[in-house]
Amino acid sequence: MNHTKEPKEYFENIQQIFHQFFSNIDFNYYPKELYEPIRYVLSNTGKQIRPMLVLMAADFFDADLNDALHAATAVEIFHNFTLVHDDIMDNAEIRRGKPSVYKKYGLSSAILVGDTMFARAYEFVTKISEQKLVQGLNLFNQISIQVCEGQQLDLNFEKKQILSLDEYFNMIKLKTAVLIAGCLKLGSLLGNADEKTQELMYDLGYNMGMLFQIQDDIMDLYANETIFGKKIGNDILDAKKTILYVLALEALSGKEKENFIELYHSQNIDPALKTQEVKNLFARHQVKERAQTWMNKFKNQTNLIIDSLPLSTQHKNILIYLLQLIENRKS
Amino acid sequence: MNHTKEPKEYFENIQQIFHQFFSNIDFNYYPKELYEPIRYVLSNTGKQIRPMLVLMAADFFDADLNDALHAATAVEIFHNFTLVHDDIMDNAEIRRGKPSVYKKYGLSSAILVGDTMFARAYEFVTKISEQKLVQGLNLFNQISIQVCEGQQLDLNFEKKQILSLDEYFNMIKLKTAVLIAGCLKLGSLLGNADEKTQELMYDLGYNMGMLFQIQDDIMDLYANETIFGKKIGNDILDAKKTILYVLALEALSGKEKENFIELYHSQNIDPALKTQEVKNLFARHQVKERAQTWMNKFKNQTNLIIDSLPLSTQHKNILIYLLQLIENRKS
Repeated sequence: MNHTKEPKEYFENIQQIFHQFFSNIDFNYYPKELYEPIRYVLSNTGKQIRPMLVLMAADFFDADLNDALHAATAVEIFHNFTLVHDDIMDNAEIRRGKPSVYKKYGLSSAILVGDTMFARAYEFVTKISEQKLVQGLNLFNQISIQVCEGQQLDLNFEKKQILSLDEYFNMIKLKTAVLIAGCLKLGSLLGNADEKTQELMYDLGYNMGMLFQIQDDIMDLYANETIFGKKIGNDILDAKKTILYVLALEALSGKEKENFIELYHSQNIDPALKTQEVKNLFARHQVKERAQTWMNKFKNQTNLIIDSLPLSTQHKNILIYLLQLIENRKS
Repeated sequence: MNHTKEPKEYFENIQQIFHQFFSNIDFNYYPKELYEPIRYVLSNTGKQIRPMLVLMAADFFDADLNDALHAATAVEIFHNFTLVHDDIMDNAEIRRGKPSVYKKYGLSSAILVGDTMFARAYEFVTKISEQKLVQGLNLFNQISIQVCEGQQLDLNFEKKQILSLDEYFNMIKLKTAVLIAGCLKLGSLLGNADEKTQELMYDLGYNMGMLFQIQDDIMDLYANETIFGKKIGNDILDAKKTILYVLALEALSGKEKENFIELYHSQNIDPALKTQEVKNLFARHQVKERAQTWMNKFKNQTNLIIDSLPLSTQHKNILIYLLQLIENRKS
C-alpha cells in the first residue's frame, strides 16, 4: 500500500483500493430473483467503515493485500447481511434512504438474500491464505455468533422496561463493538502482529465501538437534524433502550422513575410532546452529560491503547485521526 | 470404526456414534431466548440421514473420525437451519409433528435462530484438520449457496404455472440433491479418496438425492396415509410444482392442459374433490408411472456408479443396502 504521510490521504487511499476491489464483485448469478436484491444491497453500503478498519490494521502489520481485501469484503458482506435481517425484525422500511430489502422484495426474499450473503461472506473468508485461515475463520465465526447474540439481547430489551447499565453495555458490546474489534484484530492477525498485539487491536476496536454506539444514542436526540439527515428523537418514539434511557433510570427513583418509564413506553401521546417531555427530564438530570462522561471514558481508554501499541508514530497518528473522525462526526 | 459385516448393523453403529457425539452438544449458552429454540430444533432432528452419509463416506476412505464427526455435525446443523428459515417462507406451522420455530417462538426469533445455527455450523466445519480444511470449506460454501439458490427457485415456482422438466430437475438438484451429494463427497475428501473418486461419490449422492426427491413427490399423493404419518395430497392443495405436476403438463395439451392448470391452482374448490380430480387426471395419463420411470433412471445411474467405485464388496453392499432403504421407505 502507498504510505502517504497525511492520515486523510491515507484513508482516501485505502478507501479507493477497497472500492476498486469491491465494485468488481458483481454477483451476477442465477437465479436473478436472489441476486438482484443482493446487488441492490451491495450498491448502497454507506461509509464502509468496517472493511477500512480491516485494511488499515492489515497494512499496519504488513499483511498480504489479497488476504486483507478478501477479509474486508467478507466483513462488509456479513455486516450488510445482518442489516437485511435486522430490518425485518425491526420492521424498518428504509435503509440508507432507500426501501429496505424486506420492504422492496418481501419477507421470503429478505430472509433468503441474507442467508445467501452470509454464505458468500464465508466464501471470501475461505480465500485467506492457508497459514492464516484457521485463525481468521475462528475469529469470523466468533464475531458472527456474538453479533446474533447481541441482536437477540436487543430484541429482549424491547420487552424489558428495567435494565442496568451493565446489561446495556453488554448488548452494545455484542451488537456493535465486537465487529469493530474483530475488524482490527482480523487485519492485524493477517499480518505479523503477535497475539498480545492482536488483543490490543481488539481492545482498541472494542473501545472505539462502544464510543461509537454511545455517540449514536446521543446523536439520535441531540444532533442537528439537517446535518444528521434523519428525524431527531426516533429512539424515544420507538422506546429504544439507549444509554440515555438507562442513565435516566439510574438517576431516578420512586414515583418519578415510574412515571418516566410509563411516559417512555406510552404510544398514545403526541410524538412531539413525548420527545420534548423526555428531553426535559434528561436535561433536569444531566443525562446527556452523564452519557458524555461514559463516551469520554471509552475515548480515554482508546487513547491509552493507541499509546501502548507497538506502532510507528505515523501509524499512531492515523489512529488518532480516526478517533477524531468518530468524535467529530455529525451523522 | 467397528466394521461389522451386516449393513443394518453398520448403520446402527454409525448412528450410535453420531448420536453420542451430537447429543453432547448442548448449546447451553446466553441469551437463553436465542439458545432455547436452538436446543428445541436440535432435539427433534428426525432421521439424521445427512450426517450418516458423511460418516459412512468418511469411514469408507479411512478419514479421521474426529474430522468426520465435526463435518457431519456441521451438515446436520446447517440442514436444520435451512428448515427453520424454510418454514417461515412456507408458512409451515408444523415440523416433524411439533410446532415450527416460527410458530412457537415468532418471526424474529426464527430468523435469528437460523442465522446463529448457520454460524455455529461453520464453527464445526472450522474444526476439520488443517490439511483438509480448505477443501472442506469450499465444498461447504458451495453447498450452502446452492441450497439457498434452490430455495429461491422453489419460491419462483410458486408464481409460475408452466415449467419444464429441466427446470424442475434443476430446482430439486439445488434444493435437495446437492446436499446429499455434498455429504458423500465431504466424507470421502476427509479420507484418502482421490479427486476422481470424490466426484464419483458426489454423483452417487446427486442421483440418490434426485431419486429421493422424486419419491417424496410421489409419496405425497400415493403413500399409505397411516404409515406415511401425514395427510395425503398436500402438494396438490398447495399447488406445489412436483414432478407429477410437471409430467402432467408434458402429457397434456390445448384446452385440457389449460383446465388442468386452472384446477391445480384453484383455491375455491373442495379440497377432497380437488385431490380426487387431479388424481384421476394423473391416472388417465399414467403420470405416476412416468414419474417412476424417472425414479428408475436415477436408480440405475446410482447402481452404475456403485459398480464403478473403487470400494470393497462389503462397502458396495452397504451402498446397495442404503439404496434399498431409500427405495422401500414408506415415509
